[in-house]
Amino acid sequence: MIRFSHTNFTFILTLSCPNRPGIVAAISKKLFDIGGNITEAQQFDYTEGGQFFMRIVFDIPKSETIQNSIEAEMAPLSETFKMEWTLTNMDKPQKVLILVSKFDHCLVDLLYRWRIGELAIEPVGIISNHPLETYKDIEFYGVPFHHLPITKDTKAEQEARIWDIFEKSGAELAILARYMQILSNEFSAKLSGKCINIHHSFLPGFKGARPYHQAFERGVKLIGATAHYVTSDLDEGPIIEQDVERISHADTPDDLIRKGRDIERRVLARAVRSHIERRSLINGKKTIVFND
Amino acid sequence: MIRFSHTNFTFILTLSCPNRPGIVAAISKKLFDIGGNITEAQQFDYTEGGQFFMRIVFDIPKSETIQNSIEAEMAPLSETFKMEWTLTNMDKPQKVLILVSKFDHCLVDLLYRWRIGELAIEPVGIISNHPLETYKDIEFYGVPFHHLPITKDTKAEQEARIWDIFEKSGAELAILARYMQILSNEFSAKLSGKCINIHHSFLPGFKGARPYHQAFERGVKLIGATAHYVTSDLDEGPIIEQDVERISHADTPDDLIRKGRDIERRVLARAVRSHIERRSLINGKKTIVFND
Amino acid sequence: MIRFSHTNFTFILTLSCPNRPGIVAAISKKLFDIGGNITEAQQFDYTEGGQFFMRIVFDIPKSETIQNSIEAEMAPLSETFKMEWTLTNMDKPQKVLILVSKFDHCLVDLLYRWRIGELAIEPVGIISNHPLETYKDIEFYGVPFHHLPITKDTKAEQEARIWDIFEKSGAELAILARYMQILSNEFSAKLSGKCINIHHSFLPGFKGARPYHQAFERGVKLIGATAHYVTSDLDEGPIIEQDVERISHADTPDDLIRKGRDIERRVLARAVRSHIERRSLINGKKTIVFND
Amino acid sequence: MIRFSHTNFTFILTLSCPNRPGIVAAISKKLFDIGGNITEAQQFDYTEGGQFFMRIVFDIPKSETIQNSIEAEMAPLSETFKMEWTLTNMDKPQKVLILVSKFDHCLVDLLYRWRIGELAIEPVGIISNHPLETYKDIEFYGVPFHHLPITKDTKAEQEARIWDIFEKSGAELAILARYMQILSNEFSAKLSGKCINIHHSFLPGFKGARPYHQAFERGVKLIGATAHYVTSDLDEGPIIEQDVERISHADTPDDLIRKGRDIERRVLARAVRSHIERRSLINGKKTIVFND
Repeated sequence: MIRFSHTNFTFILTLSCPNRPGIVAAISKKLFDIGGNITEAQQFDYTEGGQFFMRIVFDIPKSETIQNSIEAEMAPLSETFKMEWTLTNMDKPQKVLILVSKFDHCLVDLLYRWRIGELAIEPVGIISNHPLETYKDIEFYGVPFHHLPITKDTKAEQEARIWDIFEKSGAELAILARYMQILSNEFSAKLSGKCINIHHSFLPGFKGARPYHQAFERGVKLIGATAHYVTSDLDEGPIIEQDVERISHADTPDDLIRKGRDIERRVLARAVRSHIERRSLINGKKTIVFND
Repeated sequence: MIRFSHTNFTFILTLSCPNRPGIVAAISKKLFDIGGNITEAQQFDYTEGGQFFMRIVFDIPKSETIQNSIEAEMAPLSETFKMEWTLTNMDKPQKVLILVSKFDHCLVDLLYRWRIGELAIEPVGIISNHPLETYKDIEFYGVPFHHLPITKDTKAEQEARIWDIFEKSGAELAILARYMQILSNEFSAKLSGKCINIHHSFLPGFKGARPYHQAFERGVKLIGATAHYVTSDLDEGPIIEQDVERISHADTPDDLIRKGRDIERRVLARAVRSHIERRSLINGKKTIVFND
Repeated sequence: MIRFSHTNFTFILTLSCPNRPGIVAAISKKLFDIGGNITEAQQFDYTEGGQFFMRIVFDIPKSETIQNSIEAEMAPLSETFKMEWTLTNMDKPQKVLILVSKFDHCLVDLLYRWRIGELAIEPVGIISNHPLETYKDIEFYGVPFHHLPITKDTKAEQEARIWDIFEKSGAELAILARYMQILSNEFSAKLSGKCINIHHSFLPGFKGARPYHQAFERGVKLIGATAHYVTSDLDEGPIIEQDVERISHADTPDDLIRKGRDIERRVLARAVRSHIERRSLINGKKTIVFND
Repeated sequence: MIRFSHTNFTFILTLSCPNRPGIVAAISKKLFDIGGNITEAQQFDYTEGGQFFMRIVFDIPKSETIQNSIEAEMAPLSETFKMEWTLTNMDKPQKVLILVSKFDHCLVDLLYRWRIGELAIEPVGIISNHPLETYKDIEFYGVPFHHLPITKDTKAEQEARIWDIFEKSGAELAILARYMQILSNEFSAKLSGKCINIHHSFLPGFKGARPYHQAFERGVKLIGATAHYVTSDLDEGPIIEQDVERISHADTPDDLIRKGRDIERRVLARAVRSHIERRSLINGKKTIVFND
């Protein structure tokens, strides 16, 4: 859990680079020199790929220019170690754009967690391919709603409008909260690393349509859900979080769908939290997820 | 849990038949009339298939001819309702034949549960495609060991020898305790409903060779194991039991294999118990598994 | 899952009585004779207490007087076997009264499951010891809200008003959805078997105040929640459902409270479903919970 | 997973000290300067107690005197930061003494994991208050067995003999593998931090005798086990690992004991692995357990 203070900002630094001795020493000395106090740090040495990953949470005295200062100090280090890195100020919520189709359980759940202050997000828009009246029972708390219908012929155009909203709203993350349209490869590529999807049913077990019906036909004893980053490879992006529940022969496909809703909403919420707190780092086709 | 008594036998009757009114009434009246006392009963109406399934545990006064008497009484009912049924005297352990390859964790686990009286089985043979010395550290407690090596050319012959041992030993169930040979369609058909396999990794997620390496490459966050009845459709037989464990990016393929061993041995043991207590009934490509 | 039809009603019969041979036969014959078709049945023989429990789901042709007819037919059987029994028509939702205090996650969750038709309940009132404005962000969908403040001196009076609302609204079940007032023994006794509570944290581990802080102090690795029937023995009523989640040393008490919310809402929802579908039968200080 | 190499040793450094800026920088610079390559590091800032905890895995070129060198280099740092620290060479298995009473499932499981090379332990003795013949079906693979009977009057003397064996065998850890004798406060204090116990049933839920019977009486829906460090406070030592399994009303106390065996052996094995890999650090009445 990130703790806030009146005098300090809390930053999270994540980085990855080719592994070689001295990285940890160099980074921790640098942060110490500029007045940072490391409160949490995790690292992972991906031996198979020769790549090194690190996540550091640190406090530093508040000032208006502090983010620029840290970035300037990091630049030469980043050069030396050929790092990719991100620096996030945790004192402001992260702007998210939520996409949804007919089923609203993930949307309602995210809005609830935002409202009670559980997730440090700021929803800047809700986009659906269904009209507003589909959600007439849901309180949006002032978040702008965009109805962007889609047909086979208007896919490119609709995606352009989504992208436009994403950019203009300053969104940092798109959440596909049971948005049932397949994104084009081009659009997926644009959103790469900035878009999380929840796949109902347990990937990679059941791909394609109606996975709960497939699970029913196959008589499996566990069903689950998978949250992953969107890439151009449909349902094959880096997995962030998965969970399962036990089912039985007495569960109909409708029961599986019902039980699935509970799994989907908690798996998606955990994945969003993981991303927001910069715990999930992409490593090729996989993720590093540092535990809280 | 089955409880034993000095004066009564405990029987389990399982049956399936096309669903129609009156089945439960007819069966329960019949058992009452012949002196049986029902202590446990579960039923399931598979609406989609129009089929009815039932499992009844009952006590009945001990006598040498009681099994024959019950079977005789059941015959006309079975005719009327077009039932398939089994009747099992729970007072004697069930004879099992255990097949194993190089990895011994499931074998050792089954032998342990048998030795301490946890599983009501009587191992009547252990068959391996590896020689006895592979298992030099394991105590077999007198269970006969058969080394049946196999090559591509001798598969049919080797399977004939397994079948011969199965029949001569009076085995009622064959347990593939990480036996890594693929049974021929013909042999699978012979063993249908009488053979349980443990599939490492979570089916149907990862088919084919080296599933834990597949899971590692894919970066999944859960791994599991599946125990199923063997049919001619490789790794696609009716699933009896599944379980999973959480893994992380830091787990190497060797870690997955290690964690997998724990899942495999408990999933296989639960499936064998389920079969022994007649809780798992085959329903086409699926199972009904009545909970304990 | 209960399935509905145009021509039939679905009833659930639950019963308990001293165990003796012939109960199942008698009941199933009776239901067959009056035109019922059993689609689901579970029974449990509590050997330790000599008591027999049964739950039967059956379809029967629709008519206005059918419930009375079944009850009349059951009366002599009930006499013979000294049964306690309930008969529930599943075609109408069950009226529930929801009590809540400051934390609204269980309330919001129940309302959501009701709104999308997942739980066959009809909320007939929401009672809180906090004023309406506490819930200004929640849509009640027309369910009447009652603000019933309470002080040490007005407890008896406040409980009398709750009881009055319970009776006048025709409520069949009271749900304490994180209602943080301790009911008096007299009031608990009145609601016995008709009131479900969710206890945050894992009972019986941590009794008393601030259980998540207790769990933090103790350094446990799992936290959970317990749903139980209310009796005069505080937090000691028959347990219906429990669940846990893994935690770590890095979780602060606030993290435990956050994780606890997810556990609490799903455990309470499962317990309410269990009660609504008459799967949970009280057996002294315990419950029988027949699995779905 | 610890990986071994021909040219390097793998060491694990754990430390705790009052938190202040610069610790990570100082430690990582020091290890870099002496030729260490950090492959894994976790840290935890226990804000509530002002204490900082760290675990570092590093490789360093092999030499006979390397451990002494590292220790010498660490000394001044340790002084500066008022650290408590341990340094463990992971290239040699850790010597463990296993204590057991009548139930052998944890003992058999530990011996199995040792035999197949899963746990980097070297059992240097097995101590029981029961005679050797109790274990006649178990292969000890040459590990010395000590029968140390105990009566109320000989407790002090028996514990002295255990301590003597512990010291003479060079044991680094004592494992109470269902050893059913309560250690005296004095003996517990001697073994503090060097002794792991498995408590059947889910602590702190059910203390005292026959916890599974207590769980049965109370009608709980989950049972579990807890592994913890032994302290003078019986069953209240810092918890290392816990797990649970779902149970039902149909489970008799014997069923709970059976299901408990599976939980106990996996919880104990995980706790031992955690200790061996220096993942579990004691923090007052709690532990820090760094995930693998």
